[in-house]
Amino acid sequence: MKKRRKLGRGVAIVGAGMSKFGMFADKNSKDLFAEAFNEMLASIDKGVDPGEIDALYLGNFSNDFFMHQSHWGPIITDLIGITPKPATRTEGACASSALAFREGVFAIASGFYDIVLVGGLEEMSKRSTEEVAEGLALATVPYEGTAGFTFPGVFGAIATAYFAKYGANREHLMNVTIKSHSNAPLNPKAQFPLTIRDMMNKKIESAKKKGVDTPQWSDEKDFLKDPRANPVVAWPMHLYDCCPISDGASCMLLVAEDIAKNFTDDPIYLAGMGQGSGRGLHACDDLTYFEATRYAAKEAYEMSGLKPNDVQFAEVHDCFSIAELLHIEDLGFFEPGEGYKAVADGLTRLDGSKPINTSGGLKCKGHPVGATGISQLYEIWTQLKGKAGNRQIPISDLRVGGAHNLGGTGGTCTFTILERR
Amino acid sequence: MKKRRKLGRGVAIVGAGMSKFGMFADKNSKDLFAEAFNEMLASIDKGVDPGEIDALYLGNFSNDFFMHQSHWGPIITDLIGITPKPATRTEGACASSALAFREGVFAIASGFYDIVLVGGLEEMSKRSTEEVAEGLALATVPYEGTAGFTFPGVFGAIATAYFAKYGANREHLMNVTIKSHSNAPLNPKAQFPLTIRDMMNKKIESAKKKGVDTPQWSDEKDFLKDPRANPVVAWPMHLYDCCPISDGASCMLLVAEDIAKNFTDDPIYLAGMGQGSGRGLHACDDLTYFEATRYAAKEAYEMSGLKPNDVQFAEVHDCFSIAELLHIEDLGFFEPGEGYKAVADGLTRLDGSKPINTSGGLKCKGHPVGATGISQLYEIWTQLKGKAGNRQIPISDLRVGGAHNLGGTGGTCTFTILERR
Repeated sequence: MKKRRKLGRGVAIVGAGMSKFGMFADKNSKDLFAEAFNEMLASIDKGVDPGEIDALYLGNFSNDFFMHQSHWGPIITDLIGITPKPATRTEGACASSALAFREGVFAIASGFYDIVLVGGLEEMSKRSTEEVAEGLALATVPYEGTAGFTFPGVFGAIATAYFAKYGANREHLMNVTIKSHSNAPLNPKAQFPLTIRDMMNKKIESAKKKGVDTPQWSDEKDFLKDPRANPVVAWPMHLYDCCPISDGASCMLLVAEDIAKNFTDDPIYLAGMGQGSGRGLHACDDLTYFEATRYAAKEAYEMSGLKPNDVQFAEVHDCFSIAELLHIEDLGFFEPGEGYKAVADGLTRLDGSKPINTSGGLKCKGHPVGATGISQLYEIWTQLKGKAGNRQIPISDLRVGGAHNLGGTGGTCTFTILERR
Repeated sequence: MKKRRKLGRGVAIVGAGMSKFGMFADKNSKDLFAEAFNEMLASIDKGVDPGEIDALYLGNFSNDFFMHQSHWGPIITDLIGITPKPATRTEGACASSALAFREGVFAIASGFYDIVLVGGLEEMSKRSTEEVAEGLALATVPYEGTAGFTFPGVFGAIATAYFAKYGANREHLMNVTIKSHSNAPLNPKAQFPLTIRDMMNKKIESAKKKGVDTPQWSDEKDFLKDPRANPVVAWPMHLYDCCPISDGASCMLLVAEDIAKNFTDDPIYLAGMGQGSGRGLHACDDLTYFEATRYAAKEAYEMSGLKPNDVQFAEVHDCFSIAELLHIEDLGFFEPGEGYKAVADGLTRLDGSKPINTSGGLKCKGHPVGATGISQLYEIWTQLKGKAGNRQIPISDLRVGGAHNLGGTGGTCTFTILERR
């Protein structure tokens, strides 16, 4: 039986907001969500009365664990003053808010609601690094955790497999890191707003000031190869291959396509979306791709009628540098084993033919787990609206962008394509 | 703007299953879900190939906390062999799986999917009672927890307010308990399959055997009034006013109405559904009703075009005996302040005019938090199919039943109406 992959009613995005991402001792989940929500409200040209919002979907991975508080849906409806409107939390590990977006779409496409707020949040930095690692490990499949795998280990194993199969090496991962760090300074919301060269120079300056031996790094890669600057975490994952611990929130206002123009003359439309599940490393015959991403991409392309080449730019889930290489292949942007060459050739840079992670990615923008999915869609929306300022992609007719979100070790993956008409 | 509350495409339930509820040292979440899933498969007259399932929605409150494992969606798709089909976890405290049901409905009604599995699970009994209390407290709103409230305290305060406003007393709560315990022995899935009289006689017999002073209880209420038999938990909530700690799983197969007859000649249809949010006790001007339930009921009645009188029977969220009284009023079955009289008059008994919690309710069937919402819908489905055996409601033309699920201290409430056509 051939499945339908069409929505009965189109959905548009009329507003979006996100908090600054970072580690905030003085802000809690509610503060961060309020920051995102207020920006979202202000982004709607013709305005919206929050009382018109029919429902909330909220992605959160595990504030249960991090903040000892679950059931965030009604806390947020109370915060933004829309109680008793319904609120549903979605969880799919690091893909939690991409799932919230999707459920918001279904709720509108079903005909039941017209105006739905979707968002995500996570508050992680109040816990120690060890506790955060323990919390994140809740998202691995049981076999990985009991085998001693944490996330850097899992992605280290994936990188090793990718290197062995395709002849890539650590320098190819560095290309990803250097690119992410070159985009982030252009994004005022990013947690790490410095290029690798900036960081290198800063360290040299600081060493000079302290009067200690000045490191002799010739360029960015030389810096990244130095274990004093970039220590190993789980080989070949070094510090600069890994995204940080972050706090943050993000949200978007979705409305039925037929009423979108009531809110803005320039809505951004959902073109396609897909989601897949995966079994974890123990069940993979090959670690160099994610079955769940491929399935999600297939659904999204089928729904949109678009092909990988039609997607002009994308945010992909670079929790680790190696992950970006797999995703740009799984999404069909490059052939398997060709992703690392494309990055080396500069194709994925802001001024390349297929810009990837113009926001700075999880690596530099930050990764407050439950907020990430919608923060990626926020970047796509911002670029399509032409509001990306210094990081605006220099493609004259920017119309189609995609966001890829991954949860756990590939247990949950989504791909969402937005378009400007 | 008047909102639409109609679905673009109808949804039917063609199969349902649930595990036995209880405290199982030798069964984990996967064992329990497999038990529910296998019964669901066997319940479909014309059969289904699991490979045809398009997606899974899974309600779980916090196996994060209870079992130190999150991200259950892909674990369950792997278990039942449907990877890479997408899986989304929903969380709304004790209403988590009613939310899964609702998202399954939206996914089909949107036109995107045709066949969706919805389910719920929770594994609580591996933790100590103190730890379970700590875990459940994650679902209260922050102000309640920091004020020292746990669930029995919250519902004790609600009962006190109800008593004061309407002149009810502890004996009216006992009526609820006695009724639940009289239904449970007729339900093979129930955790506590004994009537209060059975338990009373058992204690008398055991005392006799041990040669200790035989208690002199004249009837069930006399037994429930004796603090040796029924100690206080948080006045006026005594032990027999509170639902137990449970493990369990439940699931249902939802399909688009237009293909329902491919699976069974007797589908059960979704007639209406609603969901609301609440702010918790600190923000209530009156503790004797739940704003979220009233909102959910309004949505469900609007969608279905039905009135409270049309709903012939219901499962309601009796986490505590007092809760059942509030719900049957909030759902419009009885006027505010009249619920306790209706129960006293026997109207809510299995053979009454409005049977409530024929399954034994959370009190006696058990309350594995994330599994409860769909287990309530399982009871409605079972009764409407005429498959309830000894607890089959003796109404000749049983066509419409409703399930009410509550999360936290009213933070999330749902009401879902099913019908047989």
